[in-house]
Amino acid sequence: MRLSRYFLPVLKETPAEAQIASHRLMLRAGMIKQASAGNYSWLPMGFKVLRKLENIVHEEQIRAGHIPMLMPTLQSADLWRESGRYDDYGEEMLRITDRHGRDMLYGPTNEELITDIFRSHVGSYKELPLTLYHIQWKFRDEIRPRFGVMRGREFLMKDGYNFDLTREDAMHAYNRHLVSYLRTYERMGLQAIPMRAESGPIGGDDTHEFLVLAETGESGVFYDSEITDLRFGDREIDYDDVAACQSVMEEFTSRYARTDDTHDEAVFHERVPEARRREGRGIEVGQIFYFGTKYSEPMGATVQGPDGKPVPVHMGSHGIGVSRLVGAIIEASHDDKGIIWPEGVTPFHVGIVNLKQGDSEADAACEAIYKSVEALGLEPLYDDTDDRAGAKFATQDLIGLPWRITVGPRGLKNGVVELTSRRTGASEELPPEKAVEKIAQIYAPHHGAPRSEPMAKRSFHTWL
Amino acid sequence: MRLSRYFLPVLKETPAEAQIASHRLMLRAGMIKQASAGNYSWLPMGFKVLRKLENIVHEEQIRAGHIPMLMPTLQSADLWRESGRYDDYGEEMLRITDRHGRDMLYGPTNEELITDIFRSHVGSYKELPLTLYHIQWKFRDEIRPRFGVMRGREFLMKDGYNFDLTREDAMHAYNRHLVSYLRTYERMGLQAIPMRAESGPIGGDDTHEFLVLAETGESGVFYDSEITDLRFGDREIDYDDVAACQSVMEEFTSRYARTDDTHDEAVFHERVPEARRREGRGIEVGQIFYFGTKYSEPMGATVQGPDGKPVPVHMGSHGIGVSRLVGAIIEASHDDKGIIWPEGVTPFHVGIVNLKQGDSEADAACEAIYKSVEALGLEPLYDDTDDRAGAKFATQDLIGLPWRITVGPRGLKNGVVELTSRRTGASEELPPEKAVEKIAQIYAPHHGAPRSEPMAKRSFHTWL
Repeated sequence: MRLSRYFLPVLKETPAEAQIASHRLMLRAGMIKQASAGNYSWLPMGFKVLRKLENIVHEEQIRAGHIPMLMPTLQSADLWRESGRYDDYGEEMLRITDRHGRDMLYGPTNEELITDIFRSHVGSYKELPLTLYHIQWKFRDEIRPRFGVMRGREFLMKDGYNFDLTREDAMHAYNRHLVSYLRTYERMGLQAIPMRAESGPIGGDDTHEFLVLAETGESGVFYDSEITDLRFGDREIDYDDVAACQSVMEEFTSRYARTDDTHDEAVFHERVPEARRREGRGIEVGQIFYFGTKYSEPMGATVQGPDGKPVPVHMGSHGIGVSRLVGAIIEASHDDKGIIWPEGVTPFHVGIVNLKQGDSEADAACEAIYKSVEALGLEPLYDDTDDRAGAKFATQDLIGLPWRITVGPRGLKNGVVELTSRRTGASEELPPEKAVEKIAQIYAPHHGAPRSEPMAKRSFHTWL
Repeated sequence: MRLSRYFLPVLKETPAEAQIASHRLMLRAGMIKQASAGNYSWLPMGFKVLRKLENIVHEEQIRAGHIPMLMPTLQSADLWRESGRYDDYGEEMLRITDRHGRDMLYGPTNEELITDIFRSHVGSYKELPLTLYHIQWKFRDEIRPRFGVMRGREFLMKDGYNFDLTREDAMHAYNRHLVSYLRTYERMGLQAIPMRAESGPIGGDDTHEFLVLAETGESGVFYDSEITDLRFGDREIDYDDVAACQSVMEEFTSRYARTDDTHDEAVFHERVPEARRREGRGIEVGQIFYFGTKYSEPMGATVQGPDGKPVPVHMGSHGIGVSRLVGAIIEASHDDKGIIWPEGVTPFHVGIVNLKQGDSEADAACEAIYKSVEALGLEPLYDDTDDRAGAKFATQDLIGLPWRITVGPRGLKNGVVELTSRRTGASEELPPEKAVEKIAQIYAPHHGAPRSEPMAKRSFHTWL
């Protein structure tokens, strides 16, 4: 993309309403604009990041054997009356009346709707296990929306639902989700720690929240410092292997890690030696639940079991806050100058800065680099505007592309351009074709997916 | 995908509520389930098709130089009061009150919101031309929703908005949209004819609707039969070339083609010889508008012109009914047995039918074909269930994958499988590896994109 043809309305001023870094930086970098309280338009660069996160979530869910679908944003109140949640849910549920006076609502979650689909179409235990998910906009009418997309009202969430014959099968689904979530967050450059949590209005006993450590997080967290050394990494996993998934679950949840909702100081002291005890704050970016027959029983979601008798299915639901993750990634990865995108989610793979737009040699070198990067299947953002060098660098630092190639007449006289890491600030001079080669190396081995994943498997068309 | 692990709830009975073929077939093929009046859940196979259409729209819009973003589904009523449309829009607009008593609405379209974004961020004519678009769920509270996704209440639409300094520039944007829409529909296997139309509540004088000819269409159409011979085809187009875009527009709109809203019998008779006069019905799948300063003036969307004086921008809006297109494609392409997907939008590229599940040779041959097709980057749907052959064929015909490979012990004894075209019903026997080769040939040259488009250019990640 050439910046002169893009729509990237960066702001020089720090917007007064933004209290935390991610909100401030998303506004300043031209990623979002508030449409109304807690509702945001995703400007082009913001949308690009959001869509990349969505694709990663899709890929990892499909890899785990979960099946994508899509439920509508608006739901009939009738199903919620059946489950008993219509009155329970409180004022965060946006209630709507249509032109015929029918009660509807903007879905804050989809347990009822998916259970209705299940009971309409599945009759036998032979059709299990089944996990369906979607990524759809939700609405929660927060009394005081704040922190930009971190606590907005309209937000994008992945929510998945497993249907199993037994508690054991459902716990395997639970573990599968845990593993797939670990992979998902790591691909986004995040460490998200599963912590024992409370279930809230979803219900159920077994539940873990995934938290990204950040000073601006809304949850207090208490954990064993050993937990921060754990990585899922590039290891292979067979999602059908019950023991393997169980073992990953145990590895990542056996150490003490709880939010303030479930924290128990006595247990913390008993189980964790003082030197490893940590207190901090975290951003919740996902949660998994096992809730058994809480919805299947009242809503009659039963299957015929092996003995011919009807059995209510065991269910769980599993969510990832996709739009909130954009903010969480920025909270975890920025500095005073702006955002620092992890390679796996960056909106553009490399920035190209032309120090002297209009200089025929500099222009030609930039064009050649631009085309070479595109030919790699990567996306460059070429600052081809007339801005002075200082302004171009400030924009690059603000929008946070992980790599920058700077091209100027002086360097070109010596046959070199400059390749700069946004994270370290380190620069090296090298010939243009070597700079492009280096970009190719940086992105080729994983290109947003774990290294073990062959390229051909990762086409979005193929996955979905 | 293995059918035993998929969620494809096909129905044997024809649902009573469905009046038209696409609605009937989408229900029977397990593509959708009604969630409430006019609101549908997209079951896995339906969602796959919807997502493919969405990707085609994105690719063609980005190719035309238009920039993707995303606006929220819910909007504040304030902006609509500013444009004067809040009261005008009538009961189809779903009006909502939030917990603080603020008036909101579920966006039926986005002229106000995009104009607000524009006026907040763009100040100079130098930043023009600019075309922004998004693909987002809309809601229109139809008094009598019907025909499944063809006239639902919650529907997915691409809507794009151009901002230009002059009427001439805006007409170039209009033509660019017309060309990109022709390409879009052709990639979906559809002929959609641009017809002179009325503007309705969007406003403006210049507008064309795109109609797919179908008996079940809701619009009466009157046209010169020559128009049905026109194809955009594989030709190259430079979207910056004003004359080239203008010329395509003239080629496709100079002949008489109007909906019943704008039809003029006298003009029809005067301009079209009797032998070429056609009357029929059509499904509206898109519309483009030029409406000048209708929104920019009341909402103060001005830029500083070359002479330093503020000028209201010339705008247009341009929509494609993405969810409706799923129905339109089926209306245009089905038979008594079921759907017939065009190659460009098929949810799976080839079905594999194992005539004797459990037979070790048949199972092994199916597995080998399955893996070879996947290795091509294509998606097979392997019917590995225990159903009898007749039921498997009926399902394949119903869900309408364009190609089927049938594998059975008898054929394998002679070293062959059967490759069958869903459209023609023609079969040929050939060795398994030759059948896979043929599938590769069928999809390789274009693989959903026009033939002229190199594969590397078509990765979704790269486009978006």
